[in-house]
Amino acid sequence: MSTNDASIISNRQSQMREALKKAQLDAIAINPGPSLVYLTGLHFHLSERPVVFLLPVEGTPSLVFPELEMQKVESASFEIQTFSYGEPLESWAPAFEAGASAVALDGLVVGVEPVTLRVLELRLLESAAPNASFVSGADAVASLRMQKDENELDLMREATRIAEGALQDTLAFVKENVSEREISAILIRHMLERGSDGELPFQPIIAFGANSANPHAVPSDYALQEGDLVLFDWGANYKGYFSDLTRMFALGEPESELRKIVEIVQQSNAAGREKTAPGIRVGDVDVATRNVIEEAGYGEYFFHRTGHGLGLEVHEAPFIRGDNDQILEAGMTFTIEPGIYLNGRGGARIEDDMVVTQTGGESISTISRDLGILDK
Amino acid sequence: MSTNDASIISNRQSQMREALKKAQLDAIAINPGPSLVYLTGLHFHLSERPVVFLLPVEGTPSLVFPELEMQKVESASFEIQTFSYGEPLESWAPAFEAGASAVALDGLVVGVEPVTLRVLELRLLESAAPNASFVSGADAVASLRMQKDENELDLMREATRIAEGALQDTLAFVKENVSEREISAILIRHMLERGSDGELPFQPIIAFGANSANPHAVPSDYALQEGDLVLFDWGANYKGYFSDLTRMFALGEPESELRKIVEIVQQSNAAGREKTAPGIRVGDVDVATRNVIEEAGYGEYFFHRTGHGLGLEVHEAPFIRGDNDQILEAGMTFTIEPGIYLNGRGGARIEDDMVVTQTGGESISTISRDLGILDK
Repeated sequence: MSTNDASIISNRQSQMREALKKAQLDAIAINPGPSLVYLTGLHFHLSERPVVFLLPVEGTPSLVFPELEMQKVESASFEIQTFSYGEPLESWAPAFEAGASAVALDGLVVGVEPVTLRVLELRLLESAAPNASFVSGADAVASLRMQKDENELDLMREATRIAEGALQDTLAFVKENVSEREISAILIRHMLERGSDGELPFQPIIAFGANSANPHAVPSDYALQEGDLVLFDWGANYKGYFSDLTRMFALGEPESELRKIVEIVQQSNAAGREKTAPGIRVGDVDVATRNVIEEAGYGEYFFHRTGHGLGLEVHEAPFIRGDNDQILEAGMTFTIEPGIYLNGRGGARIEDDMVVTQTGGESISTISRDLGILDK
Repeated sequence: MSTNDASIISNRQSQMREALKKAQLDAIAINPGPSLVYLTGLHFHLSERPVVFLLPVEGTPSLVFPELEMQKVESASFEIQTFSYGEPLESWAPAFEAGASAVALDGLVVGVEPVTLRVLELRLLESAAPNASFVSGADAVASLRMQKDENELDLMREATRIAEGALQDTLAFVKENVSEREISAILIRHMLERGSDGELPFQPIIAFGANSANPHAVPSDYALQEGDLVLFDWGANYKGYFSDLTRMFALGEPESELRKIVEIVQQSNAAGREKTAPGIRVGDVDVATRNVIEEAGYGEYFFHRTGHGLGLEVHEAPFIRGDNDQILEAGMTFTIEPGIYLNGRGGARIEDDMVVTQTGGESISTISRDLGILDK
């Protein structure tokens, strides 16, 4: 799929308008990020120069953007009113006023994405449409983006194949005294060689020993020692779609409790995968993984949600939390990544990328989930 | 420098408080990004889970963050009041209320960074401190971050050496029919091998032929043809500090006007470098580069500012625009990157990273700025 494909984009914009109506929103304001790509096919860097796409429930959308991006905008596959500004900061407000006025934004209830729209764009919109109210439109956007079509799923499958292959390429380099940072660089290189886009979904988390007990560890200069757990949490980007996996290794046999937590997490991950099916409450996937860990007596060491939606964004809806009453539907994609973290000693997490099928759930990632024992 | 170094962090927080007083702000609210690293030494991913650091003009700062980041927070080198929330969304607002209350935020004038703080954090802060006003504190933060100390400059120099070396490694692969995307992957790989952190300042722009006329081109599958200009705009990350360079090549001799625009841009870049000195108005650097291009008759094809500050962020203050009346001071670092873009044919840009010295300006980047002619 090319996200520039005119019929896909036009279809998504129509669906977006329907979702806005359902959510009682009059328009949506989108700044650079995955939703802008999804709805327009246009790629902008998120920078200090604001870009906003304004899609009203009816009528032609407008786009406010810096003049130097004119060439990109000319490639748009759909009808759009364009309002560009120049380098002087004084030229921003008039462009926003014109863009807002073109869709009669003032007085409307306008959806925004709170995790993407910044104070920069919000203040410009508020000034351009002082009687509009800006509220969360995140659920309306997510209602479209959550369910992937076959083209999107193919891209996610390829992103997964790239990540899995790069892991295999990298394992041979994991030896005593190598640093987390070195292994991270080798892994990234192999993902790129296997066709990942350079803009990775996230910096790989390579965590050895006690560092693996930090769910969001940053690769350090710590050098691998015998008996350490080795946690890989990494993903590739294939044409904008992501994979996000976690697998566990150890340099030599780890102490018995560390092996034990890896095995419990493996069972927990399996319980979550088995629970996945259309019609299931999202929260029940979390309950399924958590039960396994709680029954094993490690409940307090699994202190994060089970997973998150995945696609054009590394964390997107649906979020796999116990309190999430959304219902799984075919085409939804998300991670299952239970963990147990023993502070100061080591942590285990095993993460797969799931797609909800017509009848159940399929793990896009298929490489072994067993604890891999590496030679020194 | 380790950004965790307690005395550096404590010193920066004191300077920040002074800058807030000067700007008549009572506090600053910072979310994950370069300023949070700069002011706290703490690294958080910007995610859907909000993190906010609240530094008042007087008193102990507070930090609101997700429980699962507790380990990171425990590594803080300074006194801080911490307020964590769990996975249920209902736990966010109470944590923000407690964090805001701990610094008596309500009723204060609070600085925020409009290009970094999102609607997510803003709305939580507004609810936690309904009588506070949230205004731009960008200039106050920039007043600290703009002037780099010797440690910061050393990191930027190393980021430049890495980028320059990786370019040399990559040029041998630039042959007829290779794609922009392939060259981008090779360049990234070499930057990582030479020690760049995996989180690059930006995706390298590798643009061949007509694509080079798009200042923010994204590497495509376009295959290089004889006579095409080849634009590299790339940078490395060394311990959080960035380089950002642009150099021009061609596959065989390009048509004469394309060579001509490269040479004009080269002269323009030189004029900007020569203008750089303490005491100079920032805007006059832009005037210097622009004059060369205007006098050559290409003024309308140079439609962006001359450059931007560089450091922990790829675009930061000072912005090198003609209307910028800030005064250059020793230790400031910024790019000089004039360009000429001929739509449909090709564009040229040459970019260096400057540091203002006690007596003038020094280009951190030193590799040849001549048009490099590559063999097929």
